[in-house]
Amino acid sequence: MKETGRAKQAGKSAEPGPDGAPENTSPLDSSVADPDPDSRELIGDMPPEEFRRYGHQVVDWLADYFEHPEHYAVQPNVRPGALIDALPPSAPDKGEPMEHILDDFEKQILPHVTHWNHPGFMGYFATTGSAPGILAETLIAGLNNIGLLWNTSPALTELEQVTLRWLAEWLKLPASWFGMTLAGASVASLHAVIAAREAAREQDQAAGRQLDIDKLVLYTSEQAHSSIEKTMLVLGLRRDHCRKVPVDTEFRMCPEKLEQAIQAALAAGLRPFCIVGTVGTTSTTSVDPIPALADIAARYSLWLHVDAAYAGSAGILPEKRHFLHGCERADSFLFNPHKWLFTPMELTAFYCRRPEVLRRALSLVPDYLRSRQDPRAVNFMEYALPLGRRFRALKLWFVMRYFGRDGLSANLREHIRLAEEFAQRVDEHPEFERLAPVPFSVVCFRYRPPGLPEDSLNELNRRLVEAINAGGDFFLSSTVLDSRFSLRVAIGNIHTRGTHVDRLWELLTAKAAEIGSPAA
Amino acid sequence: MKETGRAKQAGKSAEPGPDGAPENTSPLDSSVADPDPDSRELIGDMPPEEFRRYGHQVVDWLADYFEHPEHYAVQPNVRPGALIDALPPSAPDKGEPMEHILDDFEKQILPHVTHWNHPGFMGYFATTGSAPGILAETLIAGLNNIGLLWNTSPALTELEQVTLRWLAEWLKLPASWFGMTLAGASVASLHAVIAAREAAREQDQAAGRQLDIDKLVLYTSEQAHSSIEKTMLVLGLRRDHCRKVPVDTEFRMCPEKLEQAIQAALAAGLRPFCIVGTVGTTSTTSVDPIPALADIAARYSLWLHVDAAYAGSAGILPEKRHFLHGCERADSFLFNPHKWLFTPMELTAFYCRRPEVLRRALSLVPDYLRSRQDPRAVNFMEYALPLGRRFRALKLWFVMRYFGRDGLSANLREHIRLAEEFAQRVDEHPEFERLAPVPFSVVCFRYRPPGLPEDSLNELNRRLVEAINAGGDFFLSSTVLDSRFSLRVAIGNIHTRGTHVDRLWELLTAKAAEIGSPAA
Repeated sequence: MKETGRAKQAGKSAEPGPDGAPENTSPLDSSVADPDPDSRELIGDMPPEEFRRYGHQVVDWLADYFEHPEHYAVQPNVRPGALIDALPPSAPDKGEPMEHILDDFEKQILPHVTHWNHPGFMGYFATTGSAPGILAETLIAGLNNIGLLWNTSPALTELEQVTLRWLAEWLKLPASWFGMTLAGASVASLHAVIAAREAAREQDQAAGRQLDIDKLVLYTSEQAHSSIEKTMLVLGLRRDHCRKVPVDTEFRMCPEKLEQAIQAALAAGLRPFCIVGTVGTTSTTSVDPIPALADIAARYSLWLHVDAAYAGSAGILPEKRHFLHGCERADSFLFNPHKWLFTPMELTAFYCRRPEVLRRALSLVPDYLRSRQDPRAVNFMEYALPLGRRFRALKLWFVMRYFGRDGLSANLREHIRLAEEFAQRVDEHPEFERLAPVPFSVVCFRYRPPGLPEDSLNELNRRLVEAINAGGDFFLSSTVLDSRFSLRVAIGNIHTRGTHVDRLWELLTAKAAEIGSPAA
Repeated sequence: MKETGRAKQAGKSAEPGPDGAPENTSPLDSSVADPDPDSRELIGDMPPEEFRRYGHQVVDWLADYFEHPEHYAVQPNVRPGALIDALPPSAPDKGEPMEHILDDFEKQILPHVTHWNHPGFMGYFATTGSAPGILAETLIAGLNNIGLLWNTSPALTELEQVTLRWLAEWLKLPASWFGMTLAGASVASLHAVIAAREAAREQDQAAGRQLDIDKLVLYTSEQAHSSIEKTMLVLGLRRDHCRKVPVDTEFRMCPEKLEQAIQAALAAGLRPFCIVGTVGTTSTTSVDPIPALADIAARYSLWLHVDAAYAGSAGILPEKRHFLHGCERADSFLFNPHKWLFTPMELTAFYCRRPEVLRRALSLVPDYLRSRQDPRAVNFMEYALPLGRRFRALKLWFVMRYFGRDGLSANLREHIRLAEEFAQRVDEHPEFERLAPVPFSVVCFRYRPPGLPEDSLNELNRRLVEAINAGGDFFLSSTVLDSRFSLRVAIGNIHTRGTHVDRLWELLTAKAAEIGSPAA
């Protein structure tokens, strides 16, 4: 970018000199006070000079915020409905000065915000964007490109193809796969299951049968994400036909149980059509045995979808790539750069080995029309439920280039190192117990002081996580593993450092001792 | 917002003095030259001071851009694949300086961008964001809140409830309706049809029958948006059961034809379940007779969904509110503030009169768990396919407050005035013909020079729109109405003024004369 903007900025600081204002600005623009909405032009957007001033203010506020996100409590201490009650019941008729809106953002909205940027946010999958991603989001909103057809923004369509190919190369996924972004993993898994249904329909049609959707059965593990089951609800498939295959002691789907379930369904006259394997399950980040799942999918001609929403990012690390082994045989695959690749929400990378199946399922464009199009002018809408799309690829491009694979890898490795160190502390402490392996950066564990009966531990650990979260310095989530209530520390926040994990451990042991003592 | 940020900015202009740098910045931060990625900390985000500097640069670039979006051609003159071919085949291993990335954005990406902000962009529904929306998007990306459950960001959930209630009040929709945002109209209509299917299932169950989804029939008009038909494909319903009811000479669904179709389906043993009415169809912005549709929906116990994606915004104008008459009887309703309310992509407002039906269709939360929750702590995921959501409401809040109803109304009225003026020119010109009424801000028309046979007009008008679009100053789309190829001028861009419409008219008449002359 040229320096013109910056030069202007230098002349447009908080107290501009008489020579600071370009000729085409209104007198209001050089004033620190807000333009009075009464004298505002009603037609048109905010004047560019006013946007420049407030844009700087917003950027400055964020820069300050990122210097100390831990000055806020991770979670606000507010009761449900408090913000609703505090805000006016109606929107204003008259426009308000931006100054007031930004003030209210800080004074009214912020106290109700959960700070995902707080280095002590270790709940769910700790998820943060990054500065390059924020810069890109500003440009995305500024250009406001809408991807409907290729020509509604060639840049949007083609940068999406480029960045998804770049990602596939980093993850060593087949270069021939079709890739597109979607807003989230739930929507992407929906696309996978739609394609699976279409493939089954076409198989049955080829065999002279008609598909009965009430007989369709999908297989995933007990530890799979709820979005898979929701897909069944959305598509009107039988919820009890989302078969949750048991897992082994390390929370990985058992292939032999999967195959038994498929055979039982076939014997009962049902129609298995899809296997969803997970690389990095939600609770423990366990990894299903994808090669074995691929064998079974091939044997029974089922669609294999792999949900690597969180752990897919780790595929950029050579030492973790083995967890993606077998994924090259999947029919579809997703992972979320918005989860652990520092790309702001919402950006899911969705890949499909057989995009023509997806297109046959979803395209409204007749073949004779498509044949007139330039084959390089891809129209993503033919492969997707949404018609329009934001210029999402721009943020991925910014993030991949600014950090490079080395920078992203360094962050991922640090998170993994911190998680492993934390797991070691758990393992070494006589009163704590780890409840699952740590292949990536999530640790599941519980407090188990000697002498307490097993049936009191769940309540004890529930109180422990509540005590930690109430403090405001950390936010952990929890899960239940084999009926055991488990705390869950997820490292994935770009702001989290060793010192934060150290403090968490101190707090955990202190609170545990407090709660576990007979007096408590 | 406090002035601290701005004060810092004043001290951090392009050529900072020795006293300009705060204590905690690295020496690199005070240099104009980019930090060398070799000396960059690999772990962590871009340092806040660097974000501040590039954030200002991005804001300045956008401020400059908004001073003259018309300096670019509306549509780039590029061949499909050109950007793909120009970019490197692989992402970099080593991080790159942000300076280079921003440069490449300008030099490599921008020449392939379609400028939706160009005041001559009058294709599709001319759609622009606005400066307050861009400021909000920067904050949204900065906070990177993820709405999973209420407590993952109370502000996100409650501001969404507040702003959607504000919108409903502006549109005089029932205050009791449940509102939530979704990313786009396609996804929102999918939710409507899922709820309709659930309602039918429950009706049939109550009557001791089991729903056969192969018999479900949906009704919408010939002029409805393609997303309605796509919904059928997604849900695995029969595509030929998306019945497209004929329209009258003004492109509005004929209620008597609708009722005949329903009766014929019932007689054939099919199961009508849903009517989708449109307020502002895609081609001509015609408005279906919603009160008559509501009568029929009530008579046959069908779900009534209203798609007001574009024209819903006009409901804030008292003189246009009558077009929403009857919508208060709908079961679900959507409109897109991202279309004609100057809110950046993606934000659809989706309302449901019977949210419990949607929740029964989509929620994975058992009732006994929900009963333990505070009823004011709404978890949108129970009503939606996506689990997570961005803090979308923030941009709507910024836009509604900054412009106020008066400012938004003034812009809408100006667009309508410009469209009416344009329509009048068409009407008054002996060689042009208007092809549809203009209830809002879209004009459908064609060139019809005397003496030319009807069967040559389509090709002539196709050439005319191509000639206009090739010039780079305007972008129009086209449609086919009663087999007649129609040009389509959509006014809805916040940057479009009367002068632009004047120039378009001059260009149109000149090009038409050129193309229509016997020598051409």
